[in-house]
Amino acid sequence: MALARATDPYSDPSWSGWGDPANVPELPEEVLSLLGHALGVSRPGRRPGPISAVTLPASRLPAPVRTMLETAIGVANVVDRDEARVRHTRGKSTPDLLRVRAGDFGAAPDLVVLPGSHQQVLEALRICSQHRIAVVPFGGGTSVVGGLQPRSEPFAGVIALDPRRLNGLLGLDEVSQVATLEVGLRGPQAESLLGSRGFTTGHYPQSFEYATIGGYAATRSSGQASAGYGRFDDLVVGLRVATPVGELSIGGRAPKSAAGPDLRQLILGSEGTLGVITAVSLQIRPLPETRVYEGWRFDSFATGASALRTLAQDGRRPTVLRCSDEAETALNLARPAEIGAEGAGGGCLAIVGWEGSAEDVDMRGRGATRMLEALGRGPEPEAGESWARDRYRGPYLRDALLDAGALVETLETVTFWSLLPALYAAVSGALRDSLIAQGTPPVILCHISHVYASGASRYFTVGCAQLKDPVEQWRRAKAAASDAILAAGGSITHHHGVGRDHRDWYERELGPTAVEALRAVKTELDPAGVLNPGILIP
Amino acid sequence: MALARATDPYSDPSWSGWGDPANVPELPEEVLSLLGHALGVSRPGRRPGPISAVTLPASRLPAPVRTMLETAIGVANVVDRDEARVRHTRGKSTPDLLRVRAGDFGAAPDLVVLPGSHQQVLEALRICSQHRIAVVPFGGGTSVVGGLQPRSEPFAGVIALDPRRLNGLLGLDEVSQVATLEVGLRGPQAESLLGSRGFTTGHYPQSFEYATIGGYAATRSSGQASAGYGRFDDLVVGLRVATPVGELSIGGRAPKSAAGPDLRQLILGSEGTLGVITAVSLQIRPLPETRVYEGWRFDSFATGASALRTLAQDGRRPTVLRCSDEAETALNLARPAEIGAEGAGGGCLAIVGWEGSAEDVDMRGRGATRMLEALGRGPEPEAGESWARDRYRGPYLRDALLDAGALVETLETVTFWSLLPALYAAVSGALRDSLIAQGTPPVILCHISHVYASGASRYFTVGCAQLKDPVEQWRRAKAAASDAILAAGGSITHHHGVGRDHRDWYERELGPTAVEALRAVKTELDPAGVLNPGILIP
Repeated sequence: MALARATDPYSDPSWSGWGDPANVPELPEEVLSLLGHALGVSRPGRRPGPISAVTLPASRLPAPVRTMLETAIGVANVVDRDEARVRHTRGKSTPDLLRVRAGDFGAAPDLVVLPGSHQQVLEALRICSQHRIAVVPFGGGTSVVGGLQPRSEPFAGVIALDPRRLNGLLGLDEVSQVATLEVGLRGPQAESLLGSRGFTTGHYPQSFEYATIGGYAATRSSGQASAGYGRFDDLVVGLRVATPVGELSIGGRAPKSAAGPDLRQLILGSEGTLGVITAVSLQIRPLPETRVYEGWRFDSFATGASALRTLAQDGRRPTVLRCSDEAETALNLARPAEIGAEGAGGGCLAIVGWEGSAEDVDMRGRGATRMLEALGRGPEPEAGESWARDRYRGPYLRDALLDAGALVETLETVTFWSLLPALYAAVSGALRDSLIAQGTPPVILCHISHVYASGASRYFTVGCAQLKDPVEQWRRAKAAASDAILAAGGSITHHHGVGRDHRDWYERELGPTAVEALRAVKTELDPAGVLNPGILIP
Repeated sequence: MALARATDPYSDPSWSGWGDPANVPELPEEVLSLLGHALGVSRPGRRPGPISAVTLPASRLPAPVRTMLETAIGVANVVDRDEARVRHTRGKSTPDLLRVRAGDFGAAPDLVVLPGSHQQVLEALRICSQHRIAVVPFGGGTSVVGGLQPRSEPFAGVIALDPRRLNGLLGLDEVSQVATLEVGLRGPQAESLLGSRGFTTGHYPQSFEYATIGGYAATRSSGQASAGYGRFDDLVVGLRVATPVGELSIGGRAPKSAAGPDLRQLILGSEGTLGVITAVSLQIRPLPETRVYEGWRFDSFATGASALRTLAQDGRRPTVLRCSDEAETALNLARPAEIGAEGAGGGCLAIVGWEGSAEDVDMRGRGATRMLEALGRGPEPEAGESWARDRYRGPYLRDALLDAGALVETLETVTFWSLLPALYAAVSGALRDSLIAQGTPPVILCHISHVYASGASRYFTVGCAQLKDPVEQWRRAKAAASDAILAAGGSITHHHGVGRDHRDWYERELGPTAVEALRAVKTELDPAGVLNPGILIP
């Protein structure tokens, strides 16, 4: 029984790009000209045709299995329409979008199922496990690491398990500030259910408009306000999980305990390979009275990073904290609506945001302002407000740039503060070397957007001209960057997850004994190996 | 290669009580009289004899295994002297001490080994795994949940692995504020190594004087300053672990990442059952400039709990935060040196402490003071200072009370704020009912000492007259309390760990699917099952 369910209409994002196609900007002449001059973009990229022109392989799911699923979940919730299969093919990485543009739908699932309860998920997994059908949990579909493209062999078929009907607020403990949410809720749906009761998760990743609660948990998502509210995995106090061998109900008795290993942390980040999360209990916060976002400007990225480190270490942490390097500041990517506009202002632009009670924002803000004034210049209220207004527009810009013939992609990593300068140089260098060697000198932008007392993330955006095979072009550059990340002591991913794209590096990061331990858990919970095969687990 | 090693002398704690016997207080007449009047204590408890009078079972370790261990670790570091075996028998729970007082040393290990490097630990585990010798990692020996008493059957012997020679500061990253410490370092040794370089872990559990870095990690220790510095598991960024199947090196690339499940959280709390931690990389903090501890007084425990919850939820969290209930306040247990003294002051005494830069302490303190003034009375600087001065004295008092014929023990749990009042009533009631039924009406004290936004711990101290078989007397009371904890929605332990004493309730808390997942990891990493058998894993 849910306290309430999401009521806003569930609009599908673009099947061939990011989000709502109406938000894809028209690129200004200056940008098009810059693409030509600076990157050598000389011809437009391949554009997607109409969805009706997509050719799919025939659904190969055995008819008896389909009947069993229909019996368990309802005929209306077992779907093999081409459009549904297309919309559940892969995620939203640039290689994913390039494959869509190339009409490559070989990875389409055979069937889409929409379970309406934890029990129905359990039942679906039992059937799929018994009949060796691979299962990909497919929430918002916003993976950018190949997390939604399971291996289809040696299975008898692949189903996409879409949790959109699991859209309830199951519980709200206002005293403890804990809410239990079903996993199919998208970011805005969850915020609407909580907001009308005076609460927020505080979790606003760039994928917020489409990503789901289940996806946040399964991939260890990190939001733009992570400095203040914490990462999504920090917020989770309990998980309900369906596995082929039964239910796992983990935590949910306390925020923290000393009762053995914290098994919540085994499911968080498991990317659908150990079970399907059906509900999450979360630390929530009262809706902030006040929100203030400001720009601050530093002479160099190193000085900006120092300022962020000081704030992260001294306990006066803002709610939002990010800092762009010189190139990103110059291109104004922190404010995508103004990309290429005059007046970017030079130096390195940081966004510092405060959310909370008026008193709290004032008090924390004053302490931090003294520190920011010592190292940088500001505040620039307009820069902060424009960042907040345009914070979800970045990915739409990519669609326009792909149309224009540019190859644009992002990658991210995290390590300790002392290692960040060398990691920054090594990753930038590896990307540059690889793309220059391929004849497409890139522009490389970087920012810090998630900070900890001991370290921080680095988020890179890369742009260059598309070669004839842009998927292979990026594969090479990305492999070089990934090698550089591990060699520089970083983790292969701070918040995008492992998926299929990072799996080989993840294996190196973990080491052989840890890989075997993880495989042992997988074998126990998913003996037939049907859960998102080929993803995450080496 | 270590940057530095601990140099202070390694004094063994009392073999038959807590810590340094010189610190056991003489009980004032008022207390002795109170024990008689209020609890019906009518005869002194059994006292331990001299260590030389202890009779141990013969060491049953096969001679060839001993030789192999001597070859691997050095003859001088493989010890079977009776005194060493006695000192490595069990931990420091009240049942443990009662068994010592009864001369029960059947659980003594056959051999004590003192490896001097990670490699030597690996080698020892390889040998023990091959020859089916159970291994108990024995650090400070301060377990209060039976975590140091492995099952000896069906093994060919039991060795205690004492890490005291693993006492190095292996690395210090001052920029990132991360230190790598070997696990044999005791609390004061670690603080001394870090303190001379300007840093602290901020981790001060009541067992601080004897407990080790490895024990903190293996049991998810939580210190008295957890509100400010976090729990020990929050501080860990990397772990080096020796297992019978090889080395695990987990994390150490970043404070947080999205690279799959957080496997550090599988080792933290594993209590020596999945591997032996040999080094830990930790978030450290600069030594605080200022430390201020104050008493605040509330009319009721409910009001005090409300005040703590507000501070925990609104972001103005002090460094130390605890609140005693009416009974504990009346008995002055927050200030053990003054137990029973006049002027306890009534109501519920909270200790609120601030550590940090002078500016930070002032700023955070001012915001919190306004809130504390709204709900309670204070500050009482003297109450705060006396708490700080006497913070490690509590366990010594137990030795004196056991001598006097009282049965004294503590237990603790954690749950969400909304459930705490009912849990408090249920656990107190269960303890009271069980002990009254046994003819020994108890005094039950409680405090909150670890807070989170969504919940808090409750720590109970129970005192009554000893029956003839006080171990069985406590077993019954504790079982009733443990049942009540689970029924009220709490976790079986907030910071003491699971050990042997909580294992049955841990199994119920986890549920069958999670138990199987944990066993699968155990089987993978410890195929012969020699690591602390009978502890933690159901």
